Amino acid sequence: MEAAFSYLEQHRERFLDELLALLRIPSISAEQAHIPDMIRCAEWLRIALQKAGLDRAEVMPTAGNPVVYGEKIIDPKGPTLLIYGHYDVMPVDPREAWNSDPFEPEIRNGRIWARGANDDKGQSYMHIKAAEALIRTGTLPCNLKFMIEGEEEIGSSSLERWCAEHAEMLKADLIVVSDTSLLGWETPSITCGLRGLCYLEMEVTGPNQDLHSGLYGGAVANPANVLARLIASLTDAQGRITIPGFYDRVRELSPEEREAFARAPFSESVYKEKIGIRATEGETGYSTLERTGIRPSLDVNGIWGGYTGEGSKTVIPSKACAKISMRLVPDQDYRQIAELFERHIRSLAPDSVSVAIKTLHGGMPYVCPTDLPAYRAAASAMRQTFGCDPLPFYSGGSIPIISTFEKVLGIKSLLMGFGLGEDAIHSPNESYALQNFYRGIETILLFYGHYAETLKSDPI
Amino acid sequence: MEAAFSYLEQHRERFLDELLALLRIPSISAEQAHIPDMIRCAEWLRIALQKAGLDRAEVMPTAGNPVVYGEKIIDPKGPTLLIYGHYDVMPVDPREAWNSDPFEPEIRNGRIWARGANDDKGQSYMHIKAAEALIRTGTLPCNLKFMIEGEEEIGSSSLERWCAEHAEMLKADLIVVSDTSLLGWETPSITCGLRGLCYLEMEVTGPNQDLHSGLYGGAVANPANVLARLIASLTDAQGRITIPGFYDRVRELSPEEREAFARAPFSESVYKEKIGIRATEGETGYSTLERTGIRPSLDVNGIWGGYTGEGSKTVIPSKACAKISMRLVPDQDYRQIAELFERHIRSLAPDSVSVAIKTLHGGMPYVCPTDLPAYRAAASAMRQTFGCDPLPFYSGGSIPIISTFEKVLGIKSLLMGFGLGEDAIHSPNESYALQNFYRGIETILLFYGHYAETLKSDPI
Repeated sequence: MEAAFSYLEQHRERFLDELLALLRIPSISAEQAHIPDMIRCAEWLRIALQKAGLDRAEVMPTAGNPVVYGEKIIDPKGPTLLIYGHYDVMPVDPREAWNSDPFEPEIRNGRIWARGANDDKGQSYMHIKAAEALIRTGTLPCNLKFMIEGEEEIGSSSLERWCAEHAEMLKADLIVVSDTSLLGWETPSITCGLRGLCYLEMEVTGPNQDLHSGLYGGAVANPANVLARLIASLTDAQGRITIPGFYDRVRELSPEEREAFARAPFSESVYKEKIGIRATEGETGYSTLERTGIRPSLDVNGIWGGYTGEGSKTVIPSKACAKISMRLVPDQDYRQIAELFERHIRSLAPDSVSVAIKTLHGGMPYVCPTDLPAYRAAASAMRQTFGCDPLPFYSGGSIPIISTFEKVLGIKSLLMGFGLGEDAIHSPNESYALQNFYRGIETILLFYGHYAETLKSDPI
Repeated sequence: MEAAFSYLEQHRERFLDELLALLRIPSISAEQAHIPDMIRCAEWLRIALQKAGLDRAEVMPTAGNPVVYGEKIIDPKGPTLLIYGHYDVMPVDPREAWNSDPFEPEIRNGRIWARGANDDKGQSYMHIKAAEALIRTGTLPCNLKFMIEGEEEIGSSSLERWCAEHAEMLKADLIVVSDTSLLGWETPSITCGLRGLCYLEMEVTGPNQDLHSGLYGGAVANPANVLARLIASLTDAQGRITIPGFYDRVRELSPEEREAFARAPFSESVYKEKIGIRATEGETGYSTLERTGIRPSLDVNGIWGGYTGEGSKTVIPSKACAKISMRLVPDQDYRQIAELFERHIRSLAPDSVSVAIKTLHGGMPYVCPTDLPAYRAAASAMRQTFGCDPLPFYSGGSIPIISTFEKVLGIKSLLMGFGLGEDAIHSPNESYALQNFYRGIETILLFYGHYAETLKSDPI
């Protein structure tokens, strides 16, 4: 590993310059206008895999944005890791909230500021650079495969089918994903649970045109008022979701598990200060970390209707809409939850309006057991680079494709991410610290080695 | 009057062409970008008053958009009518819902299609043309003054002060306003009541930035969810507004008044069909006409927050906002209602968010007694042109400045409008029927005469 480490040391600047070039491509998958950027970004990554020394590097079509696939096989019968990442990024609005152009990365205060700096271009790129260091120094300890997709932020809708069609090519002992966060720089962690996601859009239609609120107000159901009523009815005063059957399959943690969870270092006051709130709010009887880690939630992600411009317009809008998503925990199923949601809304909606609901995307919750050999290998690598044992952590986020991998490919995933809460992924001013980027590459290098070793004695 | 009628007959085409030119000016008062159009529109009207034969025609500055003032004094001691109208129009969004350019008027099916065709350019212009016909034929029966403002659609905020400063100039026996509708072409009506208006904007702020709904969802109050909760809590299952004290000053109609009101021709099924709804919805115990005419209402006029673009974004928005307005009835006071609203919201808002409320505009409800000589003169004129007696009607709309006129100038207003419900004022595809435009001018001609006569024997 020493050769690889010294290779990394010699090429630090170039690795960073390359990442900045990758971050300049505005690969926003949610916006149709960026389709050409998706193609450009995939092609850029294909070349990057080639330059890193992989034997095979291809841009492969899917029903949606292409997948970048690469591999380096040193021993067809040896252990194989499949690295998963994504090159698409979130939209950037409100753009005026950014301190610098989201697609013209800047280095300030030891951090890279750009959309995708962490999620997931920065984190995916660490694996490509770890692979390069090992390949170029002739020390690669196992076979490597890369699968970098372009639709993670919009639900990975084409990937399941693509995986099923290429299951043979994708054969591996483990999938490795760096798309999560550490509890803190001083408290490394490995994500052993992810919430699922059920994301819907609801449109309430009243009259067939916008109406004058003076002439009609009081006699005609206002779709925006009805929408507010429907949304309000989805949660109760205890912060619980009121959809009948919603909690039926929620796995309750044992007292021991809750106690272990409570050991994660966490300061409620720092948490509140960082995001500028006076008080947290959530389900009665659970801590903040439990509320985001092991309990489901329901959020309005967007709401709109009527006149939203300057000044006033006295109108009853014809329509009002909301994007609503629920985070799910084991063993909830997003398809069943979508059904329960729709049934509940239909039972509440008055006859004076019509309601249309569509599912935008969904994914299952995921658990990665801490007794998996891969978990132990990752813990060893982190102990070396961070100087302490990582904590197992339940993240509130969702990577819906992870449970799909298990279903379609029969392969477990290890979630070893190097982000930090302050990176503001999905928000304006996303950033990623240089020290996380470099230490991430070191940890990945070590992990590949430990995992290959472990697998020889205890294969899973 | 015959000379004036034949003058009208000879100049029908030109009157219409002039109105179309006026409608081409996009004088949207709610949008700052249109300030130059406001100036241009005021100047256009000044010239129109001059050409109509008035002695004086001026564009007079206010703190906001200018007022166009004109007068023709035939006898300084004789009866004087002050015509009020407005040259500003509502915004046009959603623009894609228009079948033709809102500011390039088209004549189709006997109607003028354009923003402002009815409200209030079309209706104001009828008075200018009635004045022209009377002046040019030497048959003007009374003094006329015109006051056409440019801020009616945004609350007439500069007009009260301007009126107070020009009270002497504005002296008149009666203010005449054509900015309301007829019950129908076969059932003419005179508006004897208007609802007041209290229009507010509410902004709910949670975290100081948009947050990832996976990482934070369940532990942090979502401003869009809270906003929905607050809005939902403003009305109950009986369609009543829950703000404490809201109904304290609402004047209840006597059984006789309700019975008279129920005589207005009205078809619930036609009403529903026209606006495309399966069911009406409103306060329990009142009819549709009562709900819009004599009962207060609360509507969300606009709501927005979070991601409203294409596809999905998993975000907890930092802010969510709504424009909310309440229609008020005698003897509610919009200033007191704004206070009660804010107090109620503050009592409900959780500590996890901040709420800011601002008043965008307000106006008092108004009643014009049917025993006013002006009402009787208008009824006579309508009987001649429509062939039947007009019905007294309570309109749900608001013209906040009307009650201000009474307070500041001490002058009553007559609301003699010629629009129809199908004109879609404030909506896409506003229109005004040519027959209403021409019969309106005839009715106005006759009214001026009857009123001058009446005033000689029974001055009010």
